[in-house]
Amino acid sequence: MPGKIEANFILTDCGELLTMAGGRLSPRRAADLSRLKIINGCSVAALDGIIVWVGADPEAQVTLQPGSVELSARGRLVSPGLVDAHTHPVFAATRELEFEMRALGKSYAEIAAAGGGIVSSVKALRAADHQQLVNLALPRLDTMLKFGTTTVEAKSGYGLSVDDEIKMLEVIAALAERHVLDLVPTVLAGHEFPPEYRDDHGGYVRLITAEILPAVAERKLAEFSDVFYEQGVFNREQARTVQQKARELGLQLKFHVDQLTNQEGASLAAEMGAISADHLEYVSSDGIAALAVAGTFGVLLPGAGYFLDMPQRPPVRQMIEAGVPLALATDCNPGSCMSESMQLMMNLACVTYKMTPAEAFCAATTNAAWSIGRGDRLGSVEIGQQADLVVWDADNYRQVPYHFGVNLVRRVIKKGRVVA
Amino acid sequence: MPGKIEANFILTDCGELLTMAGGRLSPRRAADLSRLKIINGCSVAALDGIIVWVGADPEAQVTLQPGSVELSARGRLVSPGLVDAHTHPVFAATRELEFEMRALGKSYAEIAAAGGGIVSSVKALRAADHQQLVNLALPRLDTMLKFGTTTVEAKSGYGLSVDDEIKMLEVIAALAERHVLDLVPTVLAGHEFPPEYRDDHGGYVRLITAEILPAVAERKLAEFSDVFYEQGVFNREQARTVQQKARELGLQLKFHVDQLTNQEGASLAAEMGAISADHLEYVSSDGIAALAVAGTFGVLLPGAGYFLDMPQRPPVRQMIEAGVPLALATDCNPGSCMSESMQLMMNLACVTYKMTPAEAFCAATTNAAWSIGRGDRLGSVEIGQQADLVVWDADNYRQVPYHFGVNLVRRVIKKGRVVA
Repeated sequence: MPGKIEANFILTDCGELLTMAGGRLSPRRAADLSRLKIINGCSVAALDGIIVWVGADPEAQVTLQPGSVELSARGRLVSPGLVDAHTHPVFAATRELEFEMRALGKSYAEIAAAGGGIVSSVKALRAADHQQLVNLALPRLDTMLKFGTTTVEAKSGYGLSVDDEIKMLEVIAALAERHVLDLVPTVLAGHEFPPEYRDDHGGYVRLITAEILPAVAERKLAEFSDVFYEQGVFNREQARTVQQKARELGLQLKFHVDQLTNQEGASLAAEMGAISADHLEYVSSDGIAALAVAGTFGVLLPGAGYFLDMPQRPPVRQMIEAGVPLALATDCNPGSCMSESMQLMMNLACVTYKMTPAEAFCAATTNAAWSIGRGDRLGSVEIGQQADLVVWDADNYRQVPYHFGVNLVRRVIKKGRVVA
Repeated sequence: MPGKIEANFILTDCGELLTMAGGRLSPRRAADLSRLKIINGCSVAALDGIIVWVGADPEAQVTLQPGSVELSARGRLVSPGLVDAHTHPVFAATRELEFEMRALGKSYAEIAAAGGGIVSSVKALRAADHQQLVNLALPRLDTMLKFGTTTVEAKSGYGLSVDDEIKMLEVIAALAERHVLDLVPTVLAGHEFPPEYRDDHGGYVRLITAEILPAVAERKLAEFSDVFYEQGVFNREQARTVQQKARELGLQLKFHVDQLTNQEGASLAAEMGAISADHLEYVSSDGIAALAVAGTFGVLLPGAGYFLDMPQRPPVRQMIEAGVPLALATDCNPGSCMSESMQLMMNLACVTYKMTPAEAFCAATTNAAWSIGRGDRLGSVEIGQQADLVVWDADNYRQVPYHFGVNLVRRVIKKGRVVA
């Protein structure tokens, strides 16, 4: 029929559709966290995984190819698939004993000093082979998907040697190949100093710049380079040295900053043109201003602040008012946030950061996508974007962060296929 | 075969079985929160829903009747079904707008003053009929079950008139009839003052004692009577008057106390011989001593403290050291804790109350059962108890509170039947 749009996927009867429309052309609009752009009572059509039409009258406007997938939301809430912008999903051992130690009053620093912490994950990861690590990570990705996440940033950082960082990033590549989730890889060689360089931090920084990053870049195993800039971990000059090299090699930059103490890490991230500065519990007013000017995303990890029961919360309202674009992520990792659920992160953001449900949804979809370089292809429901959608067991979007600790996902659609 | 035990249900290959054994004969042992009594590598057999055998060699010791249910835990963690000791699962409308108001900085009191709070649930409940309320509550019970809860205490308290409290308790009775969960009903006529008695608190107390409680008792619709003793709600004398009448009518007592301010509510609960005092954020040292002497359970509701982002946490370690038996519950309700997940409550208890994983498991199973008068028939895995079990996607019990925001339940067994 002339004028009709051809499709092979359609989701009809969306009661409330959060489109997040209008932001896909530029990340600069991400500073506005209230842009849900709701359409009530509509349908979404896709062709080969790309959205081709959003509207109210599919029968008049869409031609479905034979064998198309047709699904009804039955009046439920529909949103873009959730995007988890900061995770460490590849690890060899859970760390529930540390969780118990914290309940008994031990601090993060005390646990690290007792042989726990990141270094314990390094030892376990080095002892595991590729296939073991893939097998351990797959169920975590399954859980993410089941809870509504359709795209995940995934970091290395438990290898901390040339071979083990490559091994970890190859595991992430294998997961991306095998799993329906989109994975976006980040090299985090500067996550901690490995035991063999405990007394030679300069030597490890040289290993990163001279060997690890070049090997990763040559194999095209990462899009981003990240570093943990914090008291007792990488200092400002070490972080800068690592990231300068990464930038020369064509990697975009992310930073773990201002999590446990203020180090003016946000300013360093902004100054180096990082795409995101993550954590930010102790960010200063200067740091906030620098992020806003640079357009660097703040990636908030409320699950880690909660799990570690940190007294300090990031100054989220101040960041929003200053125009810092914000994203949410789980920080999924065995030490400081053993959770795959972006739903719970949205709840934590509302409860502990006083974000509104609208802000939380924006930060968990289109903004999270922009913070990992994917805003122009996913995170919103508009023509040209990937057909990544969640149908919720909810009437309206506020119910998702409100109704917590359970799973409100009814259906997950990835690239126009029903996958959960 | 002589000497063999007859069964029609068996769960084999439990990797780690939390039996909680030894406490079923007396609630007085509940003050010891470390009594997991783990058995590694065993099986559990039941006959007609009652556990008849726990041991290592079922082939030698158990005879299975034809048509028996046989299930393997495949080396996974197995625990008693979780018991949720304090919930308000019957309501007509969710209150996500209040959730948003809190994110925007409004207090619980401001929201109540603006027509929100318990009174808004009263209006919605009064407008709904029996069948609507049943239909709305059933999926909540399904979610509880799916997340590992097998027994639930359920309160009235949104009716606040003779007819509407009866209606609510009849809904709870209908749910108990229809749903596989065990429901334990509590009348909470003293939850708030209804609008028509806003200026006649004495009149409403008289309505409770002269009409509501006698009507409930006559119809045998509740086992427990509860009252919200708090500044601005029921005062000490009103709470005492309500509960004296309840006790005369043969109901056991529960109290909402010391949640928002210290009112020495725990002492009143202990003095009146209550089975439990719930909330307890502001309980005093005197209150703690009184609970310990009386053997009154403290029922902790970490989800409500979290959801309301309360600055004050209950003095949990002090209570444990004083010998107060503690239980955990969701407080599932639309205003102050919209969650059905006891898994998340165990995590919250460890993170925010510094309970150990062992203490959290004890408080969510055998102790919770005792706090609602069921410890002698469920909450532990020992001969004579109901075969209510959870098979977890976990190797050991610490992983359950540690790995949060998701659902680690693999299988739920209720009275020897696989129900989830």
